[in-house]
Amino acid sequence: MAAGPKLRAHALPRPFRIVLVEPEIPPNTGAAARTAAATQSALHLVGKLGFRIDAHAVRRAGLDYWPLVDLHQHATLEDFTTAHPDARLHLFASAATRSYLDADFAPGDALVFGKESVGLSPALLDAYPERVWSIPTLGAVRSLNLSNAVAVATFEALRKVGALDATFLG
Amino acid sequence: MAAGPKLRAHALPRPFRIVLVEPEIPPNTGAAARTAAATQSALHLVGKLGFRIDAHAVRRAGLDYWPLVDLHQHATLEDFTTAHPDARLHLFASAATRSYLDADFAPGDALVFGKESVGLSPALLDAYPERVWSIPTLGAVRSLNLSNAVAVATFEALRKVGALDATFLG
Repeated sequence: MAAGPKLRAHALPRPFRIVLVEPEIPPNTGAAARTAAATQSALHLVGKLGFRIDAHAVRRAGLDYWPLVDLHQHATLEDFTTAHPDARLHLFASAATRSYLDADFAPGDALVFGKESVGLSPALLDAYPERVWSIPTLGAVRSLNLSNAVAVATFEALRKVGALDATFLG
Repeated sequence: MAAGPKLRAHALPRPFRIVLVEPEIPPNTGAAARTAAATQSALHLVGKLGFRIDAHAVRRAGLDYWPLVDLHQHATLEDFTTAHPDARLHLFASAATRSYLDADFAPGDALVFGKESVGLSPALLDAYPERVWSIPTLGAVRSLNLSNAVAVATFEALRKVGALDATFLG
């Protein structure tokens, strides 16, 4: 990646939170961590992980951006909401019926993604019916890679709140 | 990933093209292929690849979505533009000075991304100064993972041309 100035936007006074519930595949969490660090979002990992995130494991996995991430871990999603009562949850689910383009994102909101194999639990989706979103697809494949879904949702949230309106080189 | 109906959008009469020039890291191309197949975009791989894409190698790499991709290979970018003279090129570069949110995407356009290590060549960027775009960052990390950049740009292009306005369950 070329050195030198790049197009930047100003940090949000209240950054978004990216929340991954029981992620299973290390490179997806690694790429999501890079997106979190690139968008000044905190990364919250919830529940049992499909991999280790101690310093040695992270170094072995080549997760170069890991030390730059504002990383938090929680045993349950309830622990996250208790620790961050101001964070409204947006739940991303491939079976949701409403488009992420209709989401009322606001700074400080939590963008919550489930595990690669089965997504978020139906019980959780039922608890927040007004904020369950899907990223529509129009091809033969009907869902995105987890880290890609995180990136698409996070940049749409940033766009929608105007965080990308004013840019500068730096 | 849950079975059952999902949120869908209608295929574009003229799909976007996703063009990767000399991609180096197989999982990035694999994830971009999934995004291509999920968005009904053709995937064009240009130049020397950092990996093999014969059937055996693809199966070994677990690229489950590969057979669903409208895949093309070209020796040079000029070969691509010769084969697809109607495709306007949008070049993505981390050193670009203008935001992808200002891009005038139109159906059929080609979204072109360079190799992970150094991006697109300066000579190429100089040839299309009016259509070189960056995805702004606002955190400690100043560029995105390649497949994440592809996903963010492709969904923004789809959003901008209205391809995601009308959705249905299917």
